[in-house]
Order: sequence, then structure tokens, then C-alpha cells
Amino acid sequence: MEKLPLVLDLSGTFVFALSGALAGTKRKLDLFGVLVLSFAAATAGGIARDVLIGAIPPASVSDWRYLGVSLFAGVITFYCSPLIERMSHSVLLFDAAGLALFAVAGASKALAYGLNPVMAVMLGMVTGIGGGMARDVLLAEIPIVLRAELYAVAALAAAAVVVFGHTLRLPVVPVAAVALILCFSLRVMAIKYGWRLPVAKVTDPRKSKTKRGSGTGPEQS
Amino acid sequence: MEKLPLVLDLSGTFVFALSGALAGTKRKLDLFGVLVLSFAAATAGGIARDVLIGAIPPASVSDWRYLGVSLFAGVITFYCSPLIERMSHSVLLFDAAGLALFAVAGASKALAYGLNPVMAVMLGMVTGIGGGMARDVLLAEIPIVLRAELYAVAALAAAAVVVFGHTLRLPVVPVAAVALILCFSLRVMAIKYGWRLPVAKVTDPRKSKTKRGSGTGPEQS
Amino acid sequence: MEKLPLVLDLSGTFVFALSGALAGTKRKLDLFGVLVLSFAAATAGGIARDVLIGAIPPASVSDWRYLGVSLFAGVITFYCSPLIERMSHSVLLFDAAGLALFAVAGASKALAYGLNPVMAVMLGMVTGIGGGMARDVLLAEIPIVLRAELYAVAALAAAAVVVFGHTLRLPVVPVAAVALILCFSLRVMAIKYGWRLPVAKVTDPRKSKTKRGSGTGPEQS
Repeated sequence: MEKLPLVLDLSGTFVFALSGALAGTKRKLDLFGVLVLSFAAATAGGIARDVLIGAIPPASVSDWRYLGVSLFAGVITFYCSPLIERMSHSVLLFDAAGLALFAVAGASKALAYGLNPVMAVMLGMVTGIGGGMARDVLLAEIPIVLRAELYAVAALAAAAVVVFGHTLRLPVVPVAAVALILCFSLRVMAIKYGWRLPVAKVTDPRKSKTKRGSGTGPEQS
Repeated sequence: MEKLPLVLDLSGTFVFALSGALAGTKRKLDLFGVLVLSFAAATAGGIARDVLIGAIPPASVSDWRYLGVSLFAGVITFYCSPLIERMSHSVLLFDAAGLALFAVAGASKALAYGLNPVMAVMLGMVTGIGGGMARDVLLAEIPIVLRAELYAVAALAAAAVVVFGHTLRLPVVPVAAVALILCFSLRVMAIKYGWRLPVAKVTDPRKSKTKRGSGTGPEQS
Repeated sequence: MEKLPLVLDLSGTFVFALSGALAGTKRKLDLFGVLVLSFAAATAGGIARDVLIGAIPPASVSDWRYLGVSLFAGVITFYCSPLIERMSHSVLLFDAAGLALFAVAGASKALAYGLNPVMAVMLGMVTGIGGGMARDVLLAEIPIVLRAELYAVAALAAAAVVVFGHTLRLPVVPVAAVALILCFSLRVMAIKYGWRLPVAKVTDPRKSKTKRGSGTGPEQS
């Protein structure tokens, strides 16, 4: 039971490191940049969680296995990126798996540190989306987390299942499995069918310009 | 007296969450992206302060009211953004109010944790400008904090008033009121009259090009 | 001996603050934005290290000298930036010196806090590259750290020398000197001769377009 967070964490570390490394190779970062990015994507969520709940030093700093796993994933991606990239949607799938694993691991650990249920759900979500946010911020992009199809919602759902199961004292492993499957399939279905949350209606001054036919150009703001 | 930081913090949370959510709706983030951005804008400054002074877990993580307030503000903004946006300069005014509230709350809390006066002023400023910086970094922009009219200066002034009043053992509430008014009006006046701090004279190679008539083009650097 | 990290830290703070301030003046930030950027560039790496090893409050928050040194560097740069900029490659050289100083200081402090050798090397690297990453993220750019010639490798080499020397119980000062010189000269030589780590071969759809002669345009992704 106690090893569940560790196993989930290391698996999530591996897949998020792959996603970080792929994003890095696409941007033509050099080998080391790719490794830094894969480590950042793999550990930023967990580090944020650990700093916020007071688990210092964070697991991924005190335990070399996180570093080892993410460097391994980074090196594989770096030298085999054409192969990995050819698998269609690979980045998105790795990302979805990492999201599920981290959301579950994060919620479990927050509960273990005595946080109240609401904030344990939040920290599960932060653990899930933190790595992807760090990856995108380092690449100077608006995090996909903030735009993508049901991204944070999927993490939130998984964390909520974990916390709900914990509150009802249900057995840990099946609950975690349900949470993982829920998050992963929510995210994959959202990508496949383009499910989205609503976007606010903004009175956009550029829209009226467009009507007047001025082809505008890129967003300036 | 002891509740002052909490009240200031929650008020600042509300207005910064509004500013974060407005920035998110303008960028066409979906509902959840908007909520994440409003929570980030509302709590990043306070979380940075709490992590740095060792108040772990940070108030906005251990206390669900911060989350509740910022989600409330985010949802309002999301569904009424045309209304909120029509109020002119709303983002800037919310921002100015949040800046004042957070700078005062941050300096008070840093003093309560025994930091020396100089660093308490600094942490008040960090609390004030941290949320806006997080908001802008997540939107892949250079933080307005670093460019805008007397932004950080206003936060610094408020924090300095709080620390000064504390050193002289003046009554807390009036001092906080003065600090709030000072910061808010400094910022609003700076926006209205375009007050700015000086910008360094840089020997810009592009300037000479411009003289030779080449129509410049976007900044590259 | 015990003062070594402090001396290295303050020297690194000074040069990184110069590099942050120069980047800020180039971007036409106002005086305060420049000072915030110089403080961020100067202290982000050390703050990250201190938060991660549990040295709370971080040295640069509890000790006003870090603030003083970085404000001093920021003000100098602001008012003399044409002069400072005219020294060729100044930003890169300051950066290289700061990198070396911080990597050595970071690894030393991590060892002093009892981290295992591998993670002490990592934290030395984080201390070295954290400031530059914060500077570039705040300017909404992909950190040079992730692209530049042997940047993180140089920091890693310095940190590894420090940890290696510590493991063999070699005298501290000469080891630190070797590490500093190694990192600085690695980085400077890499800049001069364009040494780079390999970049992954990515099957880039745009490449085939380019072959067909369409002049492409900027990267969109």
C-alpha cells in the first residue's frame, strides 16, 4: 500500500519525462536542454506538491531514482525521437498517462500528509498539471493545460476519486485503478472527440474589424 | 487585529482572481483554464511569501476559503465577462486593488514571522506582484509588473508604510488603511497620468537602422 | 572555510544581477522592472536550492546583503548600460562567471545540508542555471540555458568537481578554484568556438515544405 505513491510517481515521471523530452527535441534544444526539460516536466508537479505540503526535500530531490528515470526517458527520446514521434499522438498519450498517474499519486500523498479532502483534490490536480505547465512555460508558450480539452478536469476527476475512496475507506488499489482509467480515458476521449469546456464570450474589438474585411494578422494584445 | 492579514488576503484574493480570470477569458481559455489562472493569479504571491518564510502549508493551500473565493471570482468573470470588461479599465483597477491588499497583507505576515524590516518590505512587494507575474508568465508574456507605471513601486510603498508603522508601534488598522490608499492611488494616478520610472538609455543598433529608413520590423533580440 | 559559500554566493549574485539588469534594460523595462529582474536573476537559483533542501527562509530572503548587492548591480547597470554593453559579450561573460560561482556554491551548500552526492551535483546545477532560467522566463523567452553552448554542462562539471573533491576530502579552496575555472572556461570556450551538444534529428514536416521552396515564415506550432 505504502509503495503505491512511489510506483505511480515513478511511472508518471517516466511518461512525463518522455513528453517533456519530445517537446524539447521538437524545439531543437540540445541534449542537455532536452534532459533538463524532461526532468522539469517530470518533477515540477511533484516538487510543487512536496514544497506546499512540507515534504522537504521533495521526493524527486532526495531520491535519485526520479532523476535516473527521467534522464533515461530523456536519452531514449533524444536518440530515438523520429521513432517515438512517428507513433501518432504519442506526446498527447504520454501526457494523458502521466496526468492520470500524477493526479492519483499527488492526491494520495496529500492525504497521507493530513491535508483536508478539498485541498488534497487540489494538490492532486497540481501534481498532475504542474509538470506540463513547467514544460510549456520553459518553452515560452501558454500551457496546454490551460487550453486543452478537459485537461485539468481529468486530473481533478482522478484526484476526487482517490479522495472519495479514502474518505469511504475503500481499498486503495482498486480505487487508484478506477481513478487512473477515468482520467486517462476522459482525456483521450476529449482529444478524440474534441470535447471542450465552454469558452467565455468576449466582446472582442478585433471581431468587428474582421467583419470590415481587414484580414488582421496575428494576435497582438 | 490578528484577523487583518486574513481579511486583506481574502479581499486581495478576490480581486486578483478577477484580474486573472479576465486575462484568461481574453485569451480564450476554457472554463477550467480560466479557473486555474484565477487561482494562480490570486495565490501565487501569497504562496511564494509563505514558502519563503516557512509558513508551510501556505494559507491558500491549507485554508479552503482562498480556493472558494478565487473560484467564485473566476466563475463570475467567466459568465459575465462582457459585463465586467465593459467597465473601463476594470482589469487595471482590480489589479491595483489586489496589489495594495496583498502588499499590506504580505508585509504584515512577514513581520509576524519575525523577518527583519527590510526583508518584510521586500516580501510585501513579492506578495503584491507575485500573482500578476504568475498570471503573465502563464500567458507567455513579459509581466506587466516589470514594465507598468510605478507598479512595483506602489507595492513597495505600501509595504514600507506597514513596516514603518510596525516599527513605531502605531495602531495597525489606520496604518494599513494609509498603506492601502497610498498604493492604490499611486497606481491609479500613474495609470491615468502615465507616470513612469525612467528607462535606461540603451545604444540600440536598430535605432541607427531606423534612421536610415529601414522600416524596422518586430523586435527580435 | 564556512564562509566560502557566502563569498561565492554574493559574487555570483553580483554578476547574475548584472546579467539580469542588462537583459532588462535591453527590453526597455523601467528602473524598477530592471531591479526586480536583477534580483530575480541573482537569487532564483539560490532560492530554489534553499527551498528544496529546506534552508528556510532562503539566504537571499533572510540576509539583506543579497538584496543590497543585486540592487547595487542593477542600479549601476541601469545608469551605465551603454558603457557596460559596449564591453563586448559582457552579458555572456557575466553569465558564465555567475554560472560558475553559483554551481560551486550550490553544490557546497547541498553537501552541507547532507544531500547525497548525486543530488548535490544536481542542486549545484540548479543553483547555477535557475537564475538565468527565471530571467528568461520573465522575459517570455525560451531560457538560453536550454539552448546555449554547453551551458548546463558547464554548471554540472563544476558541481561534480566540488562533490568529487568533498568525497575525497580534498582541501576546499583549491577544489572550488578548479571547479570555477573549469566551468567558466568551458562556457567561454563553448561560446567562442561554438561548441554544442548534439541536437536530436527530428522528422520535421516543415523541412519538406522548405525543399519545395515555400519560404515558410516563423515557427508557429
